[in-house]
Amino acid sequence: MKYDVVIIGSGTGGYPGAVYLAQRGFKVAVVEEKLIGGECTNWGCVPSKALYQVAEAVRVVEKVKGQASYKWEDVVDWAKSIVEETREGIKYLLEASGVEVLSGKGVLKNPHQVTISEDGSKREVEADKIILALGTDPSQLPHVKFDGEGILSNREALFMREKPSSILIVGGGVIGVEMANVFSKNGVEVTVVEIMDHILPFTDKDIAQALKTYLAGNGVKVREKTSVENVEKSGGKYNVKLSNGEILTVDKVLIATGRTPKTKGVGLEEAGISLDKKGYVIVNDECRTNVENIYATGDVIGGPQLAHKAILESVAVAKKIAGRETFKLDYHLVPITIFTGLEVASVGYTEKELSTMGIKYVKVKLPIYYLAAVKIKGGRNSFVKILLDEKSEKVFGIQVVSPNASEVISAYLPLYLGRLSFKEATSVPYPHLTVAESLRDVAEYLLGEPVHFIRK
Amino acid sequence: MKYDVVIIGSGTGGYPGAVYLAQRGFKVAVVEEKLIGGECTNWGCVPSKALYQVAEAVRVVEKVKGQASYKWEDVVDWAKSIVEETREGIKYLLEASGVEVLSGKGVLKNPHQVTISEDGSKREVEADKIILALGTDPSQLPHVKFDGEGILSNREALFMREKPSSILIVGGGVIGVEMANVFSKNGVEVTVVEIMDHILPFTDKDIAQALKTYLAGNGVKVREKTSVENVEKSGGKYNVKLSNGEILTVDKVLIATGRTPKTKGVGLEEAGISLDKKGYVIVNDECRTNVENIYATGDVIGGPQLAHKAILESVAVAKKIAGRETFKLDYHLVPITIFTGLEVASVGYTEKELSTMGIKYVKVKLPIYYLAAVKIKGGRNSFVKILLDEKSEKVFGIQVVSPNASEVISAYLPLYLGRLSFKEATSVPYPHLTVAESLRDVAEYLLGEPVHFIRK
Repeated sequence: MKYDVVIIGSGTGGYPGAVYLAQRGFKVAVVEEKLIGGECTNWGCVPSKALYQVAEAVRVVEKVKGQASYKWEDVVDWAKSIVEETREGIKYLLEASGVEVLSGKGVLKNPHQVTISEDGSKREVEADKIILALGTDPSQLPHVKFDGEGILSNREALFMREKPSSILIVGGGVIGVEMANVFSKNGVEVTVVEIMDHILPFTDKDIAQALKTYLAGNGVKVREKTSVENVEKSGGKYNVKLSNGEILTVDKVLIATGRTPKTKGVGLEEAGISLDKKGYVIVNDECRTNVENIYATGDVIGGPQLAHKAILESVAVAKKIAGRETFKLDYHLVPITIFTGLEVASVGYTEKELSTMGIKYVKVKLPIYYLAAVKIKGGRNSFVKILLDEKSEKVFGIQVVSPNASEVISAYLPLYLGRLSFKEATSVPYPHLTVAESLRDVAEYLLGEPVHFIRK
Repeated sequence: MKYDVVIIGSGTGGYPGAVYLAQRGFKVAVVEEKLIGGECTNWGCVPSKALYQVAEAVRVVEKVKGQASYKWEDVVDWAKSIVEETREGIKYLLEASGVEVLSGKGVLKNPHQVTISEDGSKREVEADKIILALGTDPSQLPHVKFDGEGILSNREALFMREKPSSILIVGGGVIGVEMANVFSKNGVEVTVVEIMDHILPFTDKDIAQALKTYLAGNGVKVREKTSVENVEKSGGKYNVKLSNGEILTVDKVLIATGRTPKTKGVGLEEAGISLDKKGYVIVNDECRTNVENIYATGDVIGGPQLAHKAILESVAVAKKIAGRETFKLDYHLVPITIFTGLEVASVGYTEKELSTMGIKYVKVKLPIYYLAAVKIKGGRNSFVKILLDEKSEKVFGIQVVSPNASEVISAYLPLYLGRLSFKEATSVPYPHLTVAESLRDVAEYLLGEPVHFIRK
């Protein structure tokens, strides 16, 4: 069978482009070895945000001295049902658009042929163009390997039939802190170990500090500049030795220290595709690999491992292939969002990045707990931080740390894009009792015309 | 005592301007007869959104077959604590800015003098300029009057010590539906009676219909084109006869049919200030009354009775008085937000308004339940509706009906403002697993380039 485009991987880096191309008349196949929708839908954002929703509800009920009682397995079943519904939605989208879904593991035979193997049988398809949306696997540690029982990745940790009474989370990145929040609100004893100076090492320290305080308030123990020296299984539990001398006994260990691109054993090197040292596919700014007709999108090319980044890359490549006007994704425009009660959303450059680049900036950091919406949502240490050029209104970065920050950052984006001036923002009636209302107040402050802050 | 500016009323129509002016060196007094912060803070948006937060948590816990147990009085106490904290925040803002707060009822003696009476004593202050931020009172019905026991306004209904087992809500406007949602999720039997064709009569029927279906799912009985004929107290309960023949017996009756401007007995007519037929203060587009040195802001001048509208009017007038560059509020830009689980947020013109004005428009209405964020938040009938000019990208109106719509509308605002083109929106990586993500997908659809919708 010959296709115009074969896409390997149906995750967020794969399906959007497939849908776009098929709807424009291209003959498109998507090869999927596991489940339609990939990591995000099946083992990542979707189930974790479902669990998060329940954790948030628990937080509210506890705020009014109440108690939420439910069975852990019902929560997991519900999360699964959301995953399934989302996956079915993507499947429908693919089918209704005329995309063929080919089940099996896709391996490049050469730059125009893909071998698909499933259950021992093989078939070959030909493609004019190929898009690699291969994704990543969770990494394990050299001395702590997944054991299928208690040493887990996100894939198992999100669907445990029984709630553990304690868990060690190795890695204080986004997955680590999100899971720490979810488990701690479910009454699990949580310890997070981060080897770097602070959790969320990619962002600024004040943000990490706010989140650390928040998690500590949930009972999470956070150990920074600390690593795991040794894990031993004993009597159904795990004895863990940390580099700070602490010894823990936990039910489960979640390893969330990083990801490994799925670029081995799929014929990439044989087809002449260049990989970087870590195994990620090297692409140019149009997501094209060094092989003319082969593109790569999503987590497999590195950069921020976020679904919205993958979706836009997939669409941009599809537009390019379709000969339509396309766009180049501005990677600094990709918001980072962390769903942790006190949420974190960040767009543009951090202080850390600006300092490294030697760019001078002005920092305006305003606490936003004065907003009733933030009080109601329990966002005690909430703030908005704007990093600006010294001499103009140019915004280098915006960080929102507050409940609902993940939604609110989209209201702030036009400031970063330069599409909304501070002055305009001061006369926009952002609705009262929302967190987005902060935007007007922040803009007033930036112009030296504050109403909800005391002028300095 | 003589002031540059005396503001009567410390609500959202009063305090922002007071703060602004005082921070710029004006001698400012605010006269308040009840509680600092006015209706919104003390008896309106703030406590109702606190109760809403708990109702939303209950909804989530029930989704996973669980149960949230708490005492109603703890919920009310918590809401009160949020109110108090918010009120204290405004008080601090006023004090720290140097605003004098004068406690008592303010009555105009003449255009430059205000008599303030409290506990039988009186004092007089002089003012160069006066701002009337008098607010409104809840209206009662000619034949159903507040009785201080069971026939209530929002002011009492939000703080009932005991949870009623049943309530009749007269009026299906914003307050009515918000309270219906809150009470129903707390296990109260709720009936909403609306005299017009449909609840939320100011907006489009499809929106009202979506909300009606949602509320019905919570067990709320909605009676449209129906009025209350008679209410009789009997044995601690209320027997109610509706115009459709139905007879109900309820614990409480909440009247939420409208508001009455607080313009009687405060010397307005004596000072020569013109009021409209309903008693609202008539102002020009700079919020100035017919008396040169007197302005009026907030609910007392009519228009959308929303805190964010009042805040901006207050600030605009303050800037004008301060001789700073000011702005004229675009009233169609004021988003209407309804906090009801399935939330409603609307900016610009509705279909109803456009039809009345004879303006031709194109309607694009897209269901957004496909988004995992909306699935997780239980927004089954969610949609986004964009009303457009036939021949250009001009947006006449945007309506978002979904969980979190109140936050999300702020992300959509730049489209309405014409500050973000559809094309730009298609390449903005709005974060995945938010409702705001719909914006990119909707923009793609509007340009005929859909990825998450099947092309028509």
